[in-house]
Amino acid sequence: MSTPNRTEIATLGEFGLIKHLVKDFELKNSSTIKGVGDDAAILDYGSKQVLVTTDLLLEGVHFDLTYVPLKHLGYKSAIVNFSDICAMNGYPKQITVSLGVSKRFSVEDMEELYAGIKIACDKYGVDLVGGDTSASMTGLAISITCMGEVDKDKVAKRSTAKDTDLICVSGDLGAAYMGLLLLEREKKVFTGDEKVQPDFSGKEYIIERQLKPEARKDIVEALARINVVPTSMIDISDGLSSELLHICDQSGVGCRVYEDRIPIDFQTATMAEEFNMNLTTVALNGGEDYELLFTVPLSMNDMFQNLPGIKIIGHITDASLGSCIITRDGQEISLKAQGWNSLG
Amino acid sequence: MSTPNRTEIATLGEFGLIKHLVKDFELKNSSTIKGVGDDAAILDYGSKQVLVTTDLLLEGVHFDLTYVPLKHLGYKSAIVNFSDICAMNGYPKQITVSLGVSKRFSVEDMEELYAGIKIACDKYGVDLVGGDTSASMTGLAISITCMGEVDKDKVAKRSTAKDTDLICVSGDLGAAYMGLLLLEREKKVFTGDEKVQPDFSGKEYIIERQLKPEARKDIVEALARINVVPTSMIDISDGLSSELLHICDQSGVGCRVYEDRIPIDFQTATMAEEFNMNLTTVALNGGEDYELLFTVPLSMNDMFQNLPGIKIIGHITDASLGSCIITRDGQEISLKAQGWNSLG
Repeated sequence: MSTPNRTEIATLGEFGLIKHLVKDFELKNSSTIKGVGDDAAILDYGSKQVLVTTDLLLEGVHFDLTYVPLKHLGYKSAIVNFSDICAMNGYPKQITVSLGVSKRFSVEDMEELYAGIKIACDKYGVDLVGGDTSASMTGLAISITCMGEVDKDKVAKRSTAKDTDLICVSGDLGAAYMGLLLLEREKKVFTGDEKVQPDFSGKEYIIERQLKPEARKDIVEALARINVVPTSMIDISDGLSSELLHICDQSGVGCRVYEDRIPIDFQTATMAEEFNMNLTTVALNGGEDYELLFTVPLSMNDMFQNLPGIKIIGHITDASLGSCIITRDGQEISLKAQGWNSLG
Repeated sequence: MSTPNRTEIATLGEFGLIKHLVKDFELKNSSTIKGVGDDAAILDYGSKQVLVTTDLLLEGVHFDLTYVPLKHLGYKSAIVNFSDICAMNGYPKQITVSLGVSKRFSVEDMEELYAGIKIACDKYGVDLVGGDTSASMTGLAISITCMGEVDKDKVAKRSTAKDTDLICVSGDLGAAYMGLLLLEREKKVFTGDEKVQPDFSGKEYIIERQLKPEARKDIVEALARINVVPTSMIDISDGLSSELLHICDQSGVGCRVYEDRIPIDFQTATMAEEFNMNLTTVALNGGEDYELLFTVPLSMNDMFQNLPGIKIIGHITDASLGSCIITRDGQEISLKAQGWNSLG
């Protein structure tokens, strides 16, 4: 909250604050008929299907403002919703943003938050169409709902993976979690002596993966270009292991993934070593990567072997075989939905 | 939280809790293709337009659990969103519900909350299609987003009222605010000696208006039956005065409303007298009535004179004349957006 100027939110009032914050957002999509300023937004989707996702982010639970700048928080809050739309093979088009704001925040703080939301909206072509601000007794609460569109025949659900399908993942895994652990370790520097600055050189990638993730709309576009609709898809917010189990449970199938196929960045590996952690555990259970995990028919093997930024990490099996990872030394270990919060 | 059984939320976990809470909700609308259980809900709206509204309700700011039962809170949280869709002349169809829940709440508490949401959904024909639950550091946070549908040519915005239009309001005003003040006065009884029970006899209506409001979908249906699209519409959540000013500001017009035309229930009047408050102030600035305020062309005067449950309270004027109430003794007083929070 160390902004040079501080304007009390009370000087604008609730209606004044939200008007002030949204005034620079322009509408970009033809499906957006009416945005902010009425009881509800009006959208027109003609022959497309509408996707809706929502996220409630609470200070102290989902984010820690001692090391997350408000602009980054705004950006990420929008991105995690865009990612859910992409995970249905859709395109994010509109968001609503509701804030609960305690007295310790100023108008300038909220401007920073909205500046981050605006950068995300501009980058992804998304319209801000609604929302409000109100008081909060404790800290900051951010509720974002995102609407998106998808052709009827292109929706990718979690529940439709088939035996023998290939399991693919975009990008690399575990980096956002390593970034989080690094930020938590350096937190004392942020809160303590201001002359001591944390040294993140050589670790920029994992920090950026934590503070400024992206939604893989580019993968949705790449799949559309090669005319492929995944047989199932999910975004990796709680860790590869947890998301694989969601697909397997909901599709009534099992899976085999290969430890040596899981894509991991060099900085993630270095950091895991520094923290004395098992790298595969980090990649399986570290959350907030927002990469896409999806399945395609086995017949597409050749096509997906050579797609840049996508890696085949295993295949779907019959449900009776369970969901396992095959380690480098050939052992089969059952996948567990550990989630990154419970990682030691 | 005085439920006979108490199951810790941790015994179900986040995914377990939301699965448990939503398992009895059935899908009712053909526009709902896929509800809870994927990254996003899938909606199909063909030739209709989609309406979206969102609300973030925080404990200690928007509700006080010392006198609001969780089932009522669930019901009301859904209703306030349905009301926003009705205020666009639309029909609510889907909601998503996200919760932030602190440790003092049990699974049974959240079941109560969802029971209220379910009653509202069943009554209004709305599908629950998404949402999640997460931890909260302090109290309860409820984020609800509602989607609705409306024919393209039937949308009623705030910004399209015209000079000479009649101003109409449904139901009666000020009751919910009187109910709130009564509950606040009796709060000590709830928190103190359990043998002393508050006596609400003869005040059931104002209590119900506060704890269990309704969205005026019946008015939207009545307007459709007589083939009338209001020239503007808004729901009364912050008080008649504030909502009239929203319509006038956004439509670039002024208005005259007549004190003696404002519909007020007998219990509201009795309570205002007991609190020694000016009844018109209560009706103008008391919030949470969730009645509909709308305008229709002057030519419809005869038709609207006799519509049950709707009262003509004034007319739209040129902007230069300002927005005023005409008192019983003929004085013109400028309307102010006081909002119910600042009422003395």
